[in-house]
Amino acid sequence: MPAGPSGLIAVDAMGADDGPHVVVEGAIEASRSGAGVTLVGPAELLRTLLQQFNATLPIVDAPEAVTMDESPLVALRKKPRASIKVACEFAASGQAAAVFSAGHTGATLFAAHAAFGMLPGVERPALAVIVPTRTGSAVLLDAGANVDCRASHLMQFGVMGAAYAEVALGCARPRVGLLSIGEEAGKGNDLTREAHALLSTAPVEFIGNLEARQLFSGDADVIVCDGFTGNIALKVGEGVVELLLAKLAAASSSRSEGSAGLSAEAASSFSAAKAGGAPLIGVNGLVVVGHGRSSARAIANGIALTARLAQGGVVPRVAEAVRRVLN
Amino acid sequence: MPAGPSGLIAVDAMGADDGPHVVVEGAIEASRSGAGVTLVGPAELLRTLLQQFNATLPIVDAPEAVTMDESPLVALRKKPRASIKVACEFAASGQAAAVFSAGHTGATLFAAHAAFGMLPGVERPALAVIVPTRTGSAVLLDAGANVDCRASHLMQFGVMGAAYAEVALGCARPRVGLLSIGEEAGKGNDLTREAHALLSTAPVEFIGNLEARQLFSGDADVIVCDGFTGNIALKVGEGVVELLLAKLAAASSSRSEGSAGLSAEAASSFSAAKAGGAPLIGVNGLVVVGHGRSSARAIANGIALTARLAQGGVVPRVAEAVRRVLN
Repeated sequence: MPAGPSGLIAVDAMGADDGPHVVVEGAIEASRSGAGVTLVGPAELLRTLLQQFNATLPIVDAPEAVTMDESPLVALRKKPRASIKVACEFAASGQAAAVFSAGHTGATLFAAHAAFGMLPGVERPALAVIVPTRTGSAVLLDAGANVDCRASHLMQFGVMGAAYAEVALGCARPRVGLLSIGEEAGKGNDLTREAHALLSTAPVEFIGNLEARQLFSGDADVIVCDGFTGNIALKVGEGVVELLLAKLAAASSSRSEGSAGLSAEAASSFSAAKAGGAPLIGVNGLVVVGHGRSSARAIANGIALTARLAQGGVVPRVAEAVRRVLN
Repeated sequence: MPAGPSGLIAVDAMGADDGPHVVVEGAIEASRSGAGVTLVGPAELLRTLLQQFNATLPIVDAPEAVTMDESPLVALRKKPRASIKVACEFAASGQAAAVFSAGHTGATLFAAHAAFGMLPGVERPALAVIVPTRTGSAVLLDAGANVDCRASHLMQFGVMGAAYAEVALGCARPRVGLLSIGEEAGKGNDLTREAHALLSTAPVEFIGNLEARQLFSGDADVIVCDGFTGNIALKVGEGVVELLLAKLAAASSSRSEGSAGLSAEAASSFSAAKAGGAPLIGVNGLVVVGHGRSSARAIANGIALTARLAQGGVVPRVAEAVRRVLN
């Protein structure tokens, strides 16, 4: 675990869907709110963008970028100076405490793995997303880093997720649930049945299977699933909110005025913009992935989250939990 | 394919979470709206319940019932006169056109399979649910009949789902999408990548992968997935709506009054009560599964849906599509 300058975040300036100016704007906002930020990307371009915002921030030059349509492994091989690769290496060498990127998740995963390596005993990293619940928040992992998982991966996600929830949510003893399609142990598919058995003997507060409608009920603090299922679950949530807002907007033109604003308020608790990002848990370094469709505000929130997680020592705490349990 | 009396629906009176009186009340409501209904369950009990509602309906005696905590195969073996088994056999013998049950999905699946058999060429039946979209409705299958699927199953779901959408939604040439975690063909897990290749050569209007947020966008008329993923997707939708309603209720006590009603209106389009049920497509008979948590109104809607599907000839039309494509 490298000990980078406390609070300094290496921000991959490339990769957000709306372009680097959004990242630069978000980084400036985060910096003004007290975060230490270094921008990583084409130096010339970043200087021009900073000038447009009348701001200055340190820059690490990385003339290349991985685009969304590229195979991440091939792209990283062909582009040794890609911004996400340079950002991860910059932090791994001890010059920053953490990395934030709103770029290609797969490329971020591979670059992070190459630069930091994994925590001993962890087979796969997981994207840990914070979701809203009726009573507060919960951690869902994996949100999309691993589309095909084995039961042992899910068990490790449970251990790492509990350690992460202690830091991120302040839970004393997080309740860990397994996302499945029925509450009884025998319900689910081959993967969840096997994972249920492994989690039952793991040293976490395992509360058994959770149905998908319990994701937001507050019944669990940590929700474990494979990355395919986690991605589906989160994106269904986004889709439902979008549909409801569209219906409400149509309806409210002829009904009470306050509704649209009220619904937007309720729906905003689901948006990726609010949380800002999700750390790649299991990597031996702190790397936070933002949503590709992030606004400048979402980028700023993501950088602030990264700074908080660095300060909370999330990587050493997950490493300690993993060391106790998995080795 | 048995040719039961047109429009007569055998209703499994047992199995709804709130008890047989809810099913009886819903069946009476459906009957008053013009559906032909036969109740299947303990005759004595059903007569008493009908008296309480001052109504009469034909009864087929079935003194046993499969409960939610039983293993369906074991229960069906131990209880040869279970209501779902008797209802399926009643319809398979030509005495009813279709079966409706709000009971144990697994037991319904096995009883239907035993009584009707499968359509030739179909390996697995699928639960086909109608979901709301921005532009109308779409069919999602499998919603939970098969938790572990092979790619060939998903291809067959696409073919059957397209035939079902023609009847249920009136689509001329339904657009079939594969639920995955990225739009490109290479995105997804092992199962979806293989299914993508099979669906690409199947004689359906295959539009490729759909992200989960596109479930409700109207981009596809038929959404194909394994039963684990489908169940997760639908139940996340329910959970999000419940969470939003809870948040709106809390907020609206101090805000505009119209909001709660308006939101309930928008949210109701997601509720199982509205659609009423989902047919088991691929079985050589018409069996519609209602939500266990159904209200009397939901039961009535489910019976009405069953009658419409029987009248639309959904089973012969799916059989014809399958015959053309799979054999």
